[in-house]
Parts: sequence; C-alpha cells; structure tokens
Amino acid sequence: MALKRVVIAGMGFGGLNAAKMLANSGLEVVMVDRNNYHLFQPLLYQVATAGLEKESIAYPLRALSRQWQHARFRMGTIEGVDLAGRMLKLKDGELAYDYLIMALGSRTSYFGNDCIARHAFDLKQLEQAEALRNHILLVFEMASRESDLANRSALLTFVIVGGGPTGVEFAGALRELIVHVLSKDYPEIKLAETRIVMVEAASSLLNAMPEHLREYALCKVRSMGIEVMLEVKVVSADGSSVALHNGVVIPTCTLFWSAGVAASEVSAGLGVPLASAGRVVVQPDLRLAEHPEVYVIGDMACAKQDGLPLPMTAPVAEQQGRHVAASIMAVERGEAVKPFVYKDKGTMATIGRSAAVAVTCGMTFKGWPAWAVWLMLHLYYLIGFRNRLLVLMNWAYYYFFHEHQVRLITDADDQKAGGLLNGR
Amino acid sequence: MALKRVVIAGMGFGGLNAAKMLANSGLEVVMVDRNNYHLFQPLLYQVATAGLEKESIAYPLRALSRQWQHARFRMGTIEGVDLAGRMLKLKDGELAYDYLIMALGSRTSYFGNDCIARHAFDLKQLEQAEALRNHILLVFEMASRESDLANRSALLTFVIVGGGPTGVEFAGALRELIVHVLSKDYPEIKLAETRIVMVEAASSLLNAMPEHLREYALCKVRSMGIEVMLEVKVVSADGSSVALHNGVVIPTCTLFWSAGVAASEVSAGLGVPLASAGRVVVQPDLRLAEHPEVYVIGDMACAKQDGLPLPMTAPVAEQQGRHVAASIMAVERGEAVKPFVYKDKGTMATIGRSAAVAVTCGMTFKGWPAWAVWLMLHLYYLIGFRNRLLVLMNWAYYYFFHEHQVRLITDADDQKAGGLLNGR
Repeated sequence: MALKRVVIAGMGFGGLNAAKMLANSGLEVVMVDRNNYHLFQPLLYQVATAGLEKESIAYPLRALSRQWQHARFRMGTIEGVDLAGRMLKLKDGELAYDYLIMALGSRTSYFGNDCIARHAFDLKQLEQAEALRNHILLVFEMASRESDLANRSALLTFVIVGGGPTGVEFAGALRELIVHVLSKDYPEIKLAETRIVMVEAASSLLNAMPEHLREYALCKVRSMGIEVMLEVKVVSADGSSVALHNGVVIPTCTLFWSAGVAASEVSAGLGVPLASAGRVVVQPDLRLAEHPEVYVIGDMACAKQDGLPLPMTAPVAEQQGRHVAASIMAVERGEAVKPFVYKDKGTMATIGRSAAVAVTCGMTFKGWPAWAVWLMLHLYYLIGFRNRLLVLMNWAYYYFFHEHQVRLITDADDQKAGGLLNGR
Repeated sequence: MALKRVVIAGMGFGGLNAAKMLANSGLEVVMVDRNNYHLFQPLLYQVATAGLEKESIAYPLRALSRQWQHARFRMGTIEGVDLAGRMLKLKDGELAYDYLIMALGSRTSYFGNDCIARHAFDLKQLEQAEALRNHILLVFEMASRESDLANRSALLTFVIVGGGPTGVEFAGALRELIVHVLSKDYPEIKLAETRIVMVEAASSLLNAMPEHLREYALCKVRSMGIEVMLEVKVVSADGSSVALHNGVVIPTCTLFWSAGVAASEVSAGLGVPLASAGRVVVQPDLRLAEHPEVYVIGDMACAKQDGLPLPMTAPVAEQQGRHVAASIMAVERGEAVKPFVYKDKGTMATIGRSAAVAVTCGMTFKGWPAWAVWLMLHLYYLIGFRNRLLVLMNWAYYYFFHEHQVRLITDADDQKAGGLLNGR
C-alpha cells in the first residue's frame, strides 16, 4: 500500500519543524522550496554587513532528507494550490497530497509604493543580503574617489526605514562596520562624512518591547552615532534621494526598507478568506475551514490568540510547525485535533557589540546579559555543526579583532547605486 | 616633495608580490584592480565543486593597503594605457604614474569560436565559480524530476575540455562530489547515469609533466570513473550538446572549457609588439623596449628563457612581481636593472583525495606524498590567517566525513542549463 503523502510547501522555520517531526512517522514527506536550502533569516543582516559568509546561515535541505527514510526534497517555485483536486501547483509541475502544510512565509511590503519598491533594499533572501553587502562596499569605493561633496554625502548616507528588530539590528551592525572596519579601510573618507538615519513612523523603536527597554534601545542607538527620526514616514525615493512626509529630502544612494511585511502572494490565489497583510484566516487548529487536510502556518497564517493575531516571528512558526505535525499524526491515529496555543518564550533584539534587549519568562534584560543570551540562542537555533562553528568563529574573530573579513564586492555590477553612478 | 608613484595594474599573484615589496619602500604605491580583493585562482575549482565558500579564497585588498603607509587601493576597470602621457586609463577616470607595473593576467580563449564561448563555463573569476556550482547542483535537481531518459542523460553528462591541471583538478573534484555527496543527496539518480567526459586535443593529460606522471594521472583519472578522450577536439556547442571533430555528438548541458588562455585584452590596445596568445613582448628585464618605466609581468608578458616563453603560471608571476619591485628600487638608487631569471621550483596537480602528481627539485612525486605537498603549499600561499583556517577546516571536514557542505544553489536563475530548460 502506498504511504499517505504530506507535502510541506516552504522550508522556513515552520516547514522545517513540521518535517523534522513527521520524518520517520510512517507517512511520505515531500519538502518543497524554491531554494535547495533552509535559510536562517535572523542573521541575514550580518551577511549584509560583511560579518558572515552567506553559506554559513543556509543549510542544504537534501542533507536533511537523506537522513530520513520516507522523506524527499523537491525544488520548485510554488504558484498555487488546487484545493479541490488536492494538488500543489509548481512552476514546473504539480504534486498530489493527502495532507498539505502551507508555510510560505512572508515578503516585504511597500504598501503599493512602487518607487520605493524599485529603489529600496530589503532582507528576505540570501542573494539580497549579498547584494546589499556589495552595494555598501561599492558606495564606499565610489565615495573614496568622488570629489563633489554633495555626491560624496549621498553615497555615504544610509537611510533605514522601520524601527523594528530588523531595522535596529541592521543599523547597529552597519554603524559598527563603518566605525571599526571601513573607517580604517578608507583613509580617503572621514567618519564624520558618514551618516545613518533611522526613520520610524511610530513614536519609539522596538514597539513590541516594554517601555524601559524601548528607551534603552533608543539611547543606545543614538549614542552609537545613528540619527533616529520618530513619527516620520518615507513617501518616495528615486535612487539618489528619499523624501519624507514632512517635506524633508535626504540625499542618499542607500534606502533600506524593513517597515512592512505581507504574507506570501500565494495566499491571495487560494480563494479563502484573508486577514490583514494578506494572511490566511485559519481555524484554531491551523486548518482551513473548508479543507481540513490543509494546514497553514507561520507568517502566512493569521491565527488569533486572546483576540489578537499572533506575530509574524520564527518562534510562532516553529511551534505551529510542530503542532500541525502532531495534528496530522493524531488524525492518522483517529484521534481528535487540538487547537494551537502559542507559548511566548520571549523576544529580543541586538543593537551592537555587548548591547541587546530581551524579554523572557516575565523578566527583562538589557546590555551585555541580553546580548549573551541572544548570541547563544542564535547559535543554538542555527542548523548544522559546521554552520555553528563558522558563525562562532566569525563572531569571536570580530569580537577580539574588530575585523570583518567578508568585505568583498562579489558582483561589481550594482543596480541600485543608480542615480549617482549614471551621473558620473 | 611629492613621492614618485608606482601604479600596479592588476592584483593577482604578480601585482600582489610587487606591492608587498614596494610597500614602505619610500615610493607611493597605488594598487588597481576591478575587484576589491586578491583572488587565489588555483582553488576556484573547489568553489565550483561545493568544497569551499567563495569568500575563503579571496582577500580584501584594503586589508593590505591599510597596513602600508604610502600604499592605497583604487578599484577600477582598466581600459588602456597612455604610454606617452604616462596615464593608466580606467573606465571611470585615469591615474598618472612614474612607474607602471602591468599585471592584468589572462582570460579564457575560445580561439574565436563564439558558440563555444556562449555555452561554456570557465573558471577565471569568483562569480564564475559560484555560477558553475549553482549550475551543477541545478542540473541534478532537474534530472531528479526528469522522466525522459535522453534529457536525464544530457543533464547528468559533464564534458570537460582541456587536460591541463585545471581540467584534471576540476574533473577529479566533480567526480568526488558526485560519488561521495550527490549520489547520497539524490536517491532519484543512479551513479551509473552520471558521466564525466574529458576531451583533450593532445595525446596525454598534463603535458607539462614527465611521462610516467602523465601515465599515472591518466590511469588514476580513468580509475575514478572519468572517461578520457585523447586527440579529440570540440568543434561546436549549443547548450544541450557538444560536437567533436570526429563527428561524435555528446548530449550535455554542461561544457567546461579549460583548453585555452590568452593575455588580457588590454595588451592589444597598448600598441606594442605582441607574441602568441596576445602576450606583450618584454625585454629580459621585463620592461617595454620603448618605455623603460613600464613593466609587464605574469600571464600578460611573454618573457623568454632558454629561447622558450615562460609558462602562464602563478610562480612565474610571483617571481616577476618581486623582480620588478626590486628593479624599480634599483632604478631609484641609480643602480643597473638585472634581467629576470625564472627559478623553476616545480609543478603539480591534484587529481583527487590522496592523489596528485608533482615535480620539484629534480624529483617526481605521485599519490599521497604529492597530495600532501600540494595541500601544504596551497595553504601556505593562501593569504590571511582566517582564510587558511577556513580552507583547512573545510578540507579536514571533507577528508573525514566525505561531505561537502557548501552545496547551495544561491541563484536559481541558471542561464546555461538553457537548451533543456527551454524545452520543458
């Protein structure tokens, strides 16, 4: 008798945790992803700031599937689902399923602003992190030989939109890269010529944190030499400047956007009810109301708890992945399926070397202790002994020598330095 | 008084060694390269076969220039030289020089065969190595879901043209990747379905080696399961097949070309006499006859010794780099310039794990001893403590666990899988 088949669409934190539990469960497991690796997204900003090689935060999915008897991997771009026919539709084929776990994550949302979308950098995929690293180093190269002061200033100004964890972590790492490494590499450029501007629409940074940690983070970020503009919105961009809602125009060749996320575009094609940000409305057990064989988890799903949608974070996706794997095994045994309950183990963000904020188990941490916890948890959740070793080595090297070694421009054909590049 | 300026165009092995000697010599040194790093080309094939991260064989040039008082780095693509006006012409500017060291290396030559140039992979730059790795992994992904046997066979056939060290090293590493790693990763594919074909126009592999080492290499390569066709030429390619001069057509999506090199195209624009392969004819002291302030070294220069042109290898470039640096310092002291004499310290090629051939100090080595020497010398010549550590770790990991961890497809938009991709 053929095994029943579970197809897992998307191998982020949700899909990966579901696959791990379902492996060797007696069901056939097919893992599908457009990439052949699982990506540890929380460290993308360190790839973008020359701290890590991109290979050290990715793990080949076939290195997992080959360990599991009834699991296999299918590389492919997911375009939709035929819910009635129980088929996952890929760009180059389709896959029949008995159970489907949709875990396609989220994408950056520019809220329909095309000019920002065209000129902004974001961090969702590995290639984007490398492209951003190349761009940062390239604008320094260009500035080092630029004599026009206005051009120099635009090349050396970095605008970061969004004061959530990604924006704060990227800003802190970028500032440290500039202060400790690039200022020595580029004797032609004075540190005072560089400028990092954080733009946040709300009245504080890290809004998910308690107030005293938000205050600590804001103080720390500003003390590092990063300008913070609160209650300010970006309205447009053209590659060599960014315009704010208050009429201010900041000349800059680098706009980093971390101010919005939306569920994968596949959600909209499912023909099921959607919540805000295009997230799929799911039952308390994370299944679709009309299709109990289809589970939706992670950033893509809008599961509510205490009346509020759960946040789009890795811990939610991981717990949901394990929950739906257990659900499917329960269904197979003829048992009832339980509703999903999220256990909030805390939240954290790192600002710079020895500086972070964290909330866990009802306690709050800041500074060195929070940073140490952040470090250990990220190493723990990273997959693969070799990746952990590489990341640890890179971090130790940087901690003791203040030196980022990955400062290579691996593709000098930068598309987004646009405005000024063309003017030269 | 302004320092006299030495411009070094190209930071390969020749330029790097010249810069090291000239640093702190009392002259201003400007290092120019289109990339912001020195590339350790001899290990490119290991990046292409998923054995190393590309970052571990590159070293940022500004990490060097910042250690030297009067040295600086200028990133730029070199387009030519105004010999009369003593100006190096870059794509985006120019640089005046008192002394110029031209060290632009070589490029792959397809001998004017455009269809081969369009469809072949070669290994000269870091991006090419990553693109080839992505391609190899992608054809395995495509083959794993391909049911048409002819298509499967074309996807799983790899044609390597050129039986020199690069061809042999790449073929050996590719075969080991397939046998030890990919055959476990892809249960859908039988090892017997894969095929590596080496095509060499001469009557043996590694023609620079003594006969008994050539025979050992041929035996070893064949015993690994690689087909070797000697005295055979490739005449055309179309992305899904390769045609040989004897009428045989091999269906393949992967053509790797290491059968020809020519000097950098900048040579042709200099307006000075050229030798075969576009190499610049230099005086015995490596200067241009009409322009004693211009030195040409490495692959770009045709220096003769005992009536024969010196080979286009790293050791020749390194020794020439040091020689011209010493020459410039001699000229500055008002001393005579000596002719360059190449000291041949040997040559080597690795075939696979524990298998290599080497000639040095009048002795020949093969098998494990040659491989151990190869390993140590490559680690020794690699620049930077961190790179050495990373490479050593990767090699040790592979040696003991037979596992390549860098098997990521980091850009799934493969251009060259063309023929079959379009047909699907």
